Formats: sequence, structure tokens, C-alpha cells
Amino acid sequence: NMEKKQTINFGAGPAKLPQSVLLQAQKELLDCSGTGISILEMSHRSSDFSKIINTTENLLRELLNVPESYKILFLQGGGSGQFSGVPLNLIGLKEDRCADYLVTGTWSAKAAKEAEKYGKVKVIHPKLDSYTKIPDSSTWSLNPSASYVYCCNETVHGVEFNFIPDTKGVVLVSDVIQLPLQASRCFGLIFAGAQKNVGCAGVTVVIVREDLMGKALKECPIILDYQVQAGNNSLYNTPPCFRYVMLLNLHDQTGGTTTFIKNLYELLDNIKDYYAALHLKKF
Amino acid sequence: NMEKKQTINFGAGPAKLPQSVLLQAQKELLDCSGTGISILEMSHRSSDFSKIINTTENLLRELLNVPESYKILFLQGGGSGQFSGVPLNLIGLKEDRCADYLVTGTWSAKAAKEAEKYGKVKVIHPKLDSYTKIPDSSTWSLNPSASYVYCCNETVHGVEFNFIPDTKGVVLVSDVIQLPLQASRCFGLIFAGAQKNVGCAGVTVVIVREDLMGKALKECPIILDYQVQAGNNSLYNTPPCFRYVMLLNLHDQTGGTTTFIKNLYELLDNIKDYYAALHLKKF
Repeated sequence: NMEKKQTINFGAGPAKLPQSVLLQAQKELLDCSGTGISILEMSHRSSDFSKIINTTENLLRELLNVPESYKILFLQGGGSGQFSGVPLNLIGLKEDRCADYLVTGTWSAKAAKEAEKYGKVKVIHPKLDSYTKIPDSSTWSLNPSASYVYCCNETVHGVEFNFIPDTKGVVLVSDVIQLPLQASRCFGLIFAGAQKNVGCAGVTVVIVREDLMGKALKECPIILDYQVQAGNNSLYNTPPCFRYVMLLNLHDQTGGTTTFIKNLYELLDNIKDYYAALHLKKF
Repeated sequence: NMEKKQTINFGAGPAKLPQSVLLQAQKELLDCSGTGISILEMSHRSSDFSKIINTTENLLRELLNVPESYKILFLQGGGSGQFSGVPLNLIGLKEDRCADYLVTGTWSAKAAKEAEKYGKVKVIHPKLDSYTKIPDSSTWSLNPSASYVYCCNETVHGVEFNFIPDTKGVVLVSDVIQLPLQASRCFGLIFAGAQKNVGCAGVTVVIVREDLMGKALKECPIILDYQVQAGNNSLYNTPPCFRYVMLLNLHDQTGGTTTFIKNLYELLDNIKDYYAALHLKKF
């Protein structure tokens, strides 16, 4: 029997990785890039690991065209961690400790609820009956004194921004990006769990404008403090080593497209073949 | 040339893993336990992943003889994350929001500093000139109104407790354990970064007495809230999937010893051979 069982997860994350990336990770699991040691046993204080993290940052900066005025951090805790990390670091940017939230699905609702622990949160559009669309921007009532405006794409409800919200000069926090980043100066912070885009679970990419750091609330856990992590090259504490899969994946990319998009097109192109050829498994 | 470069990291963590565990992880990197999917792509909401997390918990509970009155959590953020997580969850156990800290090295000093963000912290022994020993317990001035007493072994300074501190009935938070756990009812919480003991970086084991949960401070980030994570079987949010290496390792264990101890003895037994046979690399 030459058929081999292959299961595909169509979920938004953890998402599919290119076969070439998995094969490379497998090949060097006991000997990472000729260092003679497994990535799982390697000291995160070693020059070999520094090289991994620096190359990852450089490739990501190039791929997303991130200006030098932004720091790229690799943190733990996922998107849900950043639901706390964002207000803990940014809601104190202005004295009022206010933030505006666009609540368009599960994730932004959770983010808004979490932010209420740290300041005043305002949902800036009329209450939605269901999460099926982005409320018309003419109905938004933005607070010019807000420390930031928060919005995100919704992988549970399938609601996506097809435009960059105009925040009238207030810092924008989002996973909604438009490349190149310098075209949209309002961006203050972008975050993404790697498992939905570019690597495997265990690394949260945070791209933050440098001048916004250093204003964390006193109660911010040190591992979520952007300035502390930036000052330590994202190595304040031991990182999940296997995040190096992201590096393998970035090496695998070309021409400014993300794995997620590439994988998606690949899946759509071949979907009929997949159904025919594979033992699809429902999760 | 038949010699193969093999590098050993003698650091406390990330630490050595058994070769058999690495080989197993390598073998099934593209097909986890016959599921037909890589552990890196598997949904954490799937029954296959639930099986992994439940089996890991059961094996750890058996190995460490953890009573049913304790929850075992698998969290992100490492020990440094718990420097915040512990006070955020436990310092509110009593109204005074006080905690006693035994500061015997780098880690406990960092833990005490972090706890000051959330309550009143007291170092319970005379100031130490250097971190070379545990201060004699007759010099400790414990606060009976403290929410907990904190102490830990010190992997940077090499200071280790060879006894369980007598906290006079106050909840003990520590990585200093004596098995079986039920013999020391004072234990409230034990935590450990898996990379130093039992798996790879990316999972923090928190063993917490059930009756101590549910008193987290309002400002506790939701991912660090023990009760939330316990209520979600440690899957409130996406976990770093590669923590399943811990399961492989636990399967590899027998007779109540931890990998760390096993590895240490193995290293000590063979250390001369290692020096002779290997190209040792200094990190």
C-alpha cells in the first residue's frame, strides 16, 4: 500500500507549514545548522542562538519592509497575551488612560474586555447584532484623547478589514497591515501569533514604534514589557527554542508574500486534488 | 572520517534531552503518532492534541505523585513569567497583600523585585553579602500574615535547599520539592520551566493547590490566571505545540526520577569519556 495518510488542518492557526520547512526541521533536529547540538538543547545565550534570532528579525524586516523606527520583538503568550500586553504598555501613553476599540468579532471583544483591567475602554461604533461586517466608518466616534485605537481581523467570525482605519492621528494597534509600513505612519503596533502566518505556535511577533516604548504601567509583568524585551533582543528570559522554525520558513519565502497567503493559494489551487487523494480528517 | 561532531550544553537550561527522545521527535515530525499531521500544524482544539496534554498531565502526576487536590497547569512565559504570575494569583490570598521572600540568588532576587509591583514584599532573613548559602533558618523572621513564603533553588549561583522550609503554616511557593508531595501539606505552588527538567523551552509547569485559585488580582493578565487556565485544561489560548516533547520524555522515564537527575548522573558518570571523545564547545 503506497498511500500515505496525510492530514490537513484548514484552521486559521495552528496552520499549515511548507513541507520543505518541516523536512528541514526534521533533518537537523539532532544537529542544528552544523552546531552539533539540537535546537531543543541549545543555550539561548549562545552565539548560535543569537544568530538565529538576528537572522529571523532581519528576514522579517526585509519581507514586511519594516522601517528602522520600529522594533521587532519575539515574545511568548500569543495574541491573548498581547490583549493584556497592549494596554499594559500603551494605555499609559496619555494621562487619561483611555483606549478606543473596534469590536468586530471574538478576538477584538476579548481584547477590549482584557483592556478594561488597565484603563477606560470605549467601543467606538454602535452595538453590533452579529459579527458579519466592519461598521461603516462614518458611524465611528473616535476619542482624540485615546492612547490608541485597536482593531483586528477576525479569524473566528471571518471578518476582515479591507482598508486601514483612519484614526485621525491616534496610534493604531492592529494586525491589519498594509505594506510597506512606512506608508501608514499611524501604525503604532502590529502583533501576530506566528502559528497563523509564518511559523509555529510559541512566538508572538510584536512590531512596535520605538518612541511608544518605555511607558508601561507599573503592574506590567516584566516578560510583557516591550522596553525590557527590546533592550534584551527578545531574550530577557528563555524563549521557546523551537520558534526557529520561523527562520526556516522565512528562508523559504520569496518576493514579499507570507507563508499564510502562499499556503492558502496552494490549498485553493489543489483543493479538489486534496479531497480526492487524501484521507481528510475532521478536527 | 567517522567522527561526528556532538556538542553538549552543560548549562542548567535549556538542558540535555535523552537521545531517544530527540530521535522519536525527529521520526514523527511530519506525522505525529500516526495522526498524519505534524505536531506543528495540529489544531490545539483537536482530540489528538487533548490526548497529548491529558497524557502528559497523567504521567507527570504519577511521576511526581501529585495529589488530586493539586491542579497541574502547562503555561507560557517560563519561570520569569511566574515571578509575576505567583503574586498576581496569590498575594491577594490575605487582605494585607504581603509576601515573604527568601532571597538566595539571582532568581529569587528577580522574583522578589517583580512581586513588589503587586504587594508588600519582605525579605525574611538578614542581608547576604554573597549568594553562597541558605541563611540559617533560626535567623528568619516570618510574617504570619503573609499570603505566601517564596523560595527557590538557584541555578546561576548554585545554591540549593536541602530541606523544605518550615513556613509555620503559611503557603509555600517553591521549586524545592520533596516527594511524595502529600507529605508536605504546606506546599501551595510549585513551578518549573520544562527546559531545566523534563522537556524543552516553551512550557512552564505550575502545580497549584486547588483551593488557592480564584483569588487573582484584577490586573492579572488572563493568560497568567491559574483559574482560567485550569478551567480550560491549560488551553485557554494556543500553546506552543512543541511542548509535546515533554510527553515523549515522560514516556521515557521510569521509577520516579526526573530527566534532569537522570541526565546529570549520566553526565557525571561519563564526563571523562565526554571530554576525551567530544569536541566540546564553549557557549
